[in-house]
Amino acid sequence: MIWVLKCQYAVRGEIVTLAQNLQKDLQANPGAHSFDEIIYCNIGNPQSLGQQPITFFREVLALCDYPALLDKSETQGLFSADSIERAWQIVDQIPGRATGAYSHSQGIQGLRDTIAAGIGERDGFPCNADDIFLTDGASPAVHMMMQLLTRSEKDGILCPIPQYPLYSASITLHGGHLVPYYLDEATGWGLEISELKKQLEDAKSKGINVRALVVINPGNPTGQVLAEENQRAIVEFCKKEGLVLLADEVYQENVYVPEKKFHSFKKVSRSMGYGDNDLCLVSFQSVSKGYHGECGKRGGYMEVTGFSPDVREQIYKVASVNLCSNITGQILASLIMSPPKVGDESYESFMAEKNAILSSLTKRAKSLEEALNKLEGVTCNKAEGAMYLFPRIRLPEKAIKAAEAEKTAPDAFYCKRLLNATGIVVVPGSGFGQVPGTWHFRCTILPQEDRIPAIVTRLTEFHEKFMNEFRD
Amino acid sequence: MIWVLKCQYAVRGEIVTLAQNLQKDLQANPGAHSFDEIIYCNIGNPQSLGQQPITFFREVLALCDYPALLDKSETQGLFSADSIERAWQIVDQIPGRATGAYSHSQGIQGLRDTIAAGIGERDGFPCNADDIFLTDGASPAVHMMMQLLTRSEKDGILCPIPQYPLYSASITLHGGHLVPYYLDEATGWGLEISELKKQLEDAKSKGINVRALVVINPGNPTGQVLAEENQRAIVEFCKKEGLVLLADEVYQENVYVPEKKFHSFKKVSRSMGYGDNDLCLVSFQSVSKGYHGECGKRGGYMEVTGFSPDVREQIYKVASVNLCSNITGQILASLIMSPPKVGDESYESFMAEKNAILSSLTKRAKSLEEALNKLEGVTCNKAEGAMYLFPRIRLPEKAIKAAEAEKTAPDAFYCKRLLNATGIVVVPGSGFGQVPGTWHFRCTILPQEDRIPAIVTRLTEFHEKFMNEFRD
Repeated sequence: MIWVLKCQYAVRGEIVTLAQNLQKDLQANPGAHSFDEIIYCNIGNPQSLGQQPITFFREVLALCDYPALLDKSETQGLFSADSIERAWQIVDQIPGRATGAYSHSQGIQGLRDTIAAGIGERDGFPCNADDIFLTDGASPAVHMMMQLLTRSEKDGILCPIPQYPLYSASITLHGGHLVPYYLDEATGWGLEISELKKQLEDAKSKGINVRALVVINPGNPTGQVLAEENQRAIVEFCKKEGLVLLADEVYQENVYVPEKKFHSFKKVSRSMGYGDNDLCLVSFQSVSKGYHGECGKRGGYMEVTGFSPDVREQIYKVASVNLCSNITGQILASLIMSPPKVGDESYESFMAEKNAILSSLTKRAKSLEEALNKLEGVTCNKAEGAMYLFPRIRLPEKAIKAAEAEKTAPDAFYCKRLLNATGIVVVPGSGFGQVPGTWHFRCTILPQEDRIPAIVTRLTEFHEKFMNEFRD
Repeated sequence: MIWVLKCQYAVRGEIVTLAQNLQKDLQANPGAHSFDEIIYCNIGNPQSLGQQPITFFREVLALCDYPALLDKSETQGLFSADSIERAWQIVDQIPGRATGAYSHSQGIQGLRDTIAAGIGERDGFPCNADDIFLTDGASPAVHMMMQLLTRSEKDGILCPIPQYPLYSASITLHGGHLVPYYLDEATGWGLEISELKKQLEDAKSKGINVRALVVINPGNPTGQVLAEENQRAIVEFCKKEGLVLLADEVYQENVYVPEKKFHSFKKVSRSMGYGDNDLCLVSFQSVSKGYHGECGKRGGYMEVTGFSPDVREQIYKVASVNLCSNITGQILASLIMSPPKVGDESYESFMAEKNAILSSLTKRAKSLEEALNKLEGVTCNKAEGAMYLFPRIRLPEKAIKAAEAEKTAPDAFYCKRLLNATGIVVVPGSGFGQVPGTWHFRCTILPQEDRIPAIVTRLTEFHEKFMNEFRD
């Protein structure tokens, strides 16, 4: 409980509670506010904002949930041929076709084989299905690794600042020490090796035993996509310093700029000639992100390489205590790593759905970024990837004083004002960490495309009024 | 990691790894052993042993996974009218009909309303939907509570011995102290208040701050169903001593003897006139157990009553860090607490499926119990409920010496011998805790009914041979 009290999780924090109360108020008293709905830009939850699920994935899930359908003739008219074929394949991969049984603690073997093949195809380097641990989304996987890596308060984890607060929350909950390294906003949230070295030395000098480095690529909340050269330097750094590399790669499908490409750390390290003996590497993946955004299914996996059999055994044990992750999520994780292929009946409609979502996200990211950069005192790096913008707001002294008077952080003050004036929910930068004295907020790029102009207008009007009220 | 190393989880421990290796061996070399398959009686996983899912539940899940079906005319021919109606109702309860979105951290409001109504109907006392936290099965719920209750190694949790090892594992993982109380095998695994008092005083005298009492009813691994009078005394004890009552009620549908009935601790405490100000009570429920046995769906909830707003806020925060439990599991949790009713199209077939499973489990429990009691030196209490038998085996001195020579606990020695001779997987009593010097194993009652005679024969033959080899 002591760690629980210390733990913070801004993405679902105070501002969201305020928004939920406002929503109830709107339902009870329509017209009580100058807006008619709450727009949740606080969390990467695409389907909550109207994104439709990918048809093929849902077809297969429905058939696996109720396999009796597979034997009925009417099913042919309702489902695509390849979804039926895939469902048969999956049901046959489940021992005894028992779709309602606990699976192996790491997940169903056949699904792990599919995922391993998908990783192999993505990277051009083989993946062993025994290295895959299927999990209820990426969050429990991160918790498992933090639990394993943290022995005492003297154990530290290098984490980017700004970071996704799952990391700070998980480190706190497990009684460890977050060692921050700062991303450089001026160079598009650049990850500098010199900064890693400096913070590592500083932590060591304080008696902290730094055990791992968290890298989020594409970045959350910062949206940058790492260059391959940069990734090589990170791998080299981890190898040299004996750090476990915890690679949050859940946004691997979300890249919006032609000049950048996602490379997994597994691929980068293997292309450097490094294998299991050189580097302990964990890659986290989730069905919640990507173009599919299936947050509610709570599926994901971690690929765990380079650990000794002893440590592997401990990872397995922790996975076992929770028995297994949910089978629907397991199936979906296998589908995202092995979607329809050229020639499959669903292929064209699948690609159309996928490309429509990704190209729309590209446009939304660009519109919002441009709008933010036009606001007085606001600068915003490009969202090269992921689902977020993290603009810096230069708040007037008068606004900072007003925030202090309300015993609120200045960025939280701004975000609450924004919420109350427009119904738009964003998360203050202080929830993610930021260079002291700078203020930011995180805003998702997820509202549907036709809503963006109205959001831009509301945001712009609010910001002007705010500045008029507080300008020094 | 220090706690991880200490943690044990026998249900998926060494003996299961041995069984999995044997299974691989059987696949590679059929005929290499005197049996042709592994029979997993180590874990309460009904569908892995051939139990079929309840049709109505799976119909609703499939429709919710692929709601496009709801608009198609062919669907009428494939699904029951009430499953279609229920799926509409659920889809409409999800904000924006976003079946793929993260939900509220406690779970979808409409589903919690349904569950609360189901609890109210079960107990005859109202339940507030705000008290429901939907979770990925009961295990994560137990972890959450242990995390919240444990501040240091000096914090203790009273746990039954024998117990389901989730509790010992979770207490260890969170750095707390398990305070054991022994169930009395001679009185059918009776739970004596005098024993609770004795162990509480003993713990206090050692400086342990006992915070909660775990009661598993119906019992796991012990299968007893508590009498209401006993439950009243437990409630009184918790109230007097200021202990949180953690009530594991996941087997509430699994009662096999006419003279016993399940009563929730919520109902018992309310019927004593105790409300929120008298007792902190958490009731755990799961979709994995009952007659449905949907282990792979990882659904469940906890009903949390009697805590202060401060503590409630902390519970909510911990739930928030994992965002939400999987939606399929949430939906299923609402279905088990609100199954088809008289007059619904599915009602009769649903009741037939449900009653067939429960009456078959009753028969299996009885057959296995009788067979075990016939074995030399074995006594076995009745499985009044849950899914397990926990026979006591009086091992000859020679067997104990042979186990010592192999550096194995005597019950583990017996279970490994049983596995190697018959392919039957059971879990040694040492994985659950037992009175020192006594030996047990846990065996599920879950193999299909037509398999029971063969299992009894194999078990009986093995036991005779074992006794012939080791009899003093």
